[in-house]
Amino acid sequence: METLVIDRARRSFVEVAPSSHFPLQNLPYGVFRRADHSDPRPGVRIGDFVLDLRVAEERGLLADASLSRGIFASSSLNAFMALGRQNWVAARRVIADLLDARTATLRDDSSLRAAALLPVDRVTMCLPCEIGDYTDFYSSREHATNVGMMFRGKENALMPNWLWLPVGYHGRSSSIVISGTPIKRPKGQSMADGAERPVFGPSRTLDIELEVGALIGPGNSLGAPLSVDRAMEHVFGLVLVNDWSARDIQKWEYVPLGPFLGKNFATTVSPWVVTLDALEPFRCPAPQQEPAPLEYLRPAAGSDGGFTYDIPLAVTLAPAATTQVSPGSKSMDRPAEPLNAASGTFVENSAATICRSNFKYLYWTIAQQIAHHTCNGCNLRPGDLLASGTISGPSPDSFGSLLELTWRGERPLRLPGGVERKFLQDGDTITLTGCCETAGLRVGFGECSGTIRPAN
Amino acid sequence: METLVIDRARRSFVEVAPSSHFPLQNLPYGVFRRADHSDPRPGVRIGDFVLDLRVAEERGLLADASLSRGIFASSSLNAFMALGRQNWVAARRVIADLLDARTATLRDDSSLRAAALLPVDRVTMCLPCEIGDYTDFYSSREHATNVGMMFRGKENALMPNWLWLPVGYHGRSSSIVISGTPIKRPKGQSMADGAERPVFGPSRTLDIELEVGALIGPGNSLGAPLSVDRAMEHVFGLVLVNDWSARDIQKWEYVPLGPFLGKNFATTVSPWVVTLDALEPFRCPAPQQEPAPLEYLRPAAGSDGGFTYDIPLAVTLAPAATTQVSPGSKSMDRPAEPLNAASGTFVENSAATICRSNFKYLYWTIAQQIAHHTCNGCNLRPGDLLASGTISGPSPDSFGSLLELTWRGERPLRLPGGVERKFLQDGDTITLTGCCETAGLRVGFGECSGTIRPAN
Repeated sequence: METLVIDRARRSFVEVAPSSHFPLQNLPYGVFRRADHSDPRPGVRIGDFVLDLRVAEERGLLADASLSRGIFASSSLNAFMALGRQNWVAARRVIADLLDARTATLRDDSSLRAAALLPVDRVTMCLPCEIGDYTDFYSSREHATNVGMMFRGKENALMPNWLWLPVGYHGRSSSIVISGTPIKRPKGQSMADGAERPVFGPSRTLDIELEVGALIGPGNSLGAPLSVDRAMEHVFGLVLVNDWSARDIQKWEYVPLGPFLGKNFATTVSPWVVTLDALEPFRCPAPQQEPAPLEYLRPAAGSDGGFTYDIPLAVTLAPAATTQVSPGSKSMDRPAEPLNAASGTFVENSAATICRSNFKYLYWTIAQQIAHHTCNGCNLRPGDLLASGTISGPSPDSFGSLLELTWRGERPLRLPGGVERKFLQDGDTITLTGCCETAGLRVGFGECSGTIRPAN
Repeated sequence: METLVIDRARRSFVEVAPSSHFPLQNLPYGVFRRADHSDPRPGVRIGDFVLDLRVAEERGLLADASLSRGIFASSSLNAFMALGRQNWVAARRVIADLLDARTATLRDDSSLRAAALLPVDRVTMCLPCEIGDYTDFYSSREHATNVGMMFRGKENALMPNWLWLPVGYHGRSSSIVISGTPIKRPKGQSMADGAERPVFGPSRTLDIELEVGALIGPGNSLGAPLSVDRAMEHVFGLVLVNDWSARDIQKWEYVPLGPFLGKNFATTVSPWVVTLDALEPFRCPAPQQEPAPLEYLRPAAGSDGGFTYDIPLAVTLAPAATTQVSPGSKSMDRPAEPLNAASGTFVENSAATICRSNFKYLYWTIAQQIAHHTCNGCNLRPGDLLASGTISGPSPDSFGSLLELTWRGERPLRLPGGVERKFLQDGDTITLTGCCETAGLRVGFGECSGTIRPAN
């Protein structure tokens, strides 16, 4: 698979802080609204700025990429995503050159710069594309095992099919929202243990799921499966996904057809789509699989299907302002402190890190998910979202949901200031982050966050 | 709810055969391609003709409906569907008047007629709208009971939640196809009883599901539920749905997250959207529900939420030409003969009716499905499809799937010419039909059909 890795010695003329997720080596795509224009448009993030791709295209700055005319005139990235890897690499080369410290075009033209480069705090982020279909997998062995143990006991934790195929199901596209959108606590039916009849009301066990989602590029026609070895050519990039879950609603409704209202009230995604080119330096071998998967899920030695990515992930929980937190410690701008694993408590900070996990823990790879999803002829379209499922790691502080972190609420989390949490309370803010790091190079996803609003 | 019922004494100047599903009292909407234009456009069916709504609008024939300008310039019905019931009634009134035998505008202008009215055999039907999200319910008590008995025994046939809420799950939008699209037999994983490992190959138990789907009009914003009493105002109309199902794939994959690849290789819908106005004369009371549903699912006395529709449905199966059927009896043009219930066999005809059911058998109504779907704040968008789930009736000849009709293959269907079927074979054509009838008035859906092609 052709990828374009931008040499780490290269720098942009746009100042990029060492802690930034968005150096010249990242260049993730997103869609934003300018304060002075109402229509959303594609952009690329560099440091704390956004390159307006529509303006860049209109001014001829992208001509060398030879893209279809007007590809960024759209209010979504779908058309660009449909073009495929060769065009993505061409665009990446041109955009990297344009933002390079050695290129004068934008660097030395202040009026062009003012038109095309916008401070990120002056724009509003939108969904990066129209998501036709959203599929949610269940590809973390640790997560499936944890949930299985809670509901079916240790002996039957993993279902018989789990090690043979990447279990997945269809999610809801309409309620996918961009990071920062408030999340209203859902109402629904639930059945208390031993009760005679269900009740209707606000969910009492509102939870998160730490996930990473793949956004599909060209995709396939109905009836034409994608092979595991070529599947990654169809991935435009990755985003963080919080698959908010109402456990009480889910538990009552999900038999036999799967989760529905326990999930579809909202799913939050991060705004910046990190490309596989940017993640290339963080490729690592996929986990060993035993039993060996069937042939259509087995990548050829050395093929793109046999790799995954080393992406450290974290979840922070900032309790509502009304909770007992010492004054002045509530700011989300302060970096979250790490979990104190020894004591099982959290150091004093209102935004506590409650989970540290990693994308590489997943048992089934994106390539296998795609090969499986299309093996029956099902078609993937540009913009489709394939989420990983909750990414839990081997240690208790790497579990990707409150259900697991608090073991069904039996072991509440102790947050700074004496606050305890079994599940989410109104006013709580959850933020997912992800950032790869190696030898001074940082490539990150930014944030995927949401604050719980009361049911009404 | 405001509806426009067209008096049954009224006639169109377009000749409509007595057996037609499409008299002036129906006027269903669809999207079609003309042989002389490549772009799809909205139309209305009358007898064996299609009124080109884009041409009608351009020529000013719909001016009296005061719709948004260019509403039919679109290649889908979504924009019109989003306008809501008041506009739908206005459009229906104008279109009915235009096609009325007493109106000279089109009737007496042969060149206008040639431009705006096309023989249906000269057009190609497309999907009526862009379907953002597709939800499949499970609302037939008989179907849920039959399937439950097969897999869990008589005592545990219905799951505990079934009588309390309309169970549903998310389906796949990308693989929804229009009637007539060939259906390729899907490949997938299945696990034979007692086997040690699954195998990958073409499904051996390919099945149908007889369903009816509601297409959503305006819908709701995220976080703003629709009440059961106002829900029907958001239904633009109904179509027939065949939810093709690969039972062997489904059985292995569906625990614990529900059906996925066993369903998402294809779902067929009929092309003409029959409006609730056209179905109004066939309204009937919804079934009694015991236990009484929770308040949010309980319609007020006399409200629109308390009604359903009496829509007789049928499924015909025409075996492949290669099967042993006497020559000359293979035509799908010949009407299917009824099931001979007494003998359990079928009278001689290659296209045998294998099921006769009725929409009114459903336990949960569309209004209840919508109220439930949105009770957690989930948003429905114009064009969304809510399918009913397999519609099985009380008698064995009214079961809406081969799984039930042949009781897991244990009682093969005997078709004309000595052909037997447990599940579908390559070359088989399945056609769903639905037509309401009362005192000489027929309002029908036409056909929803598909032919099985071999896996490759």
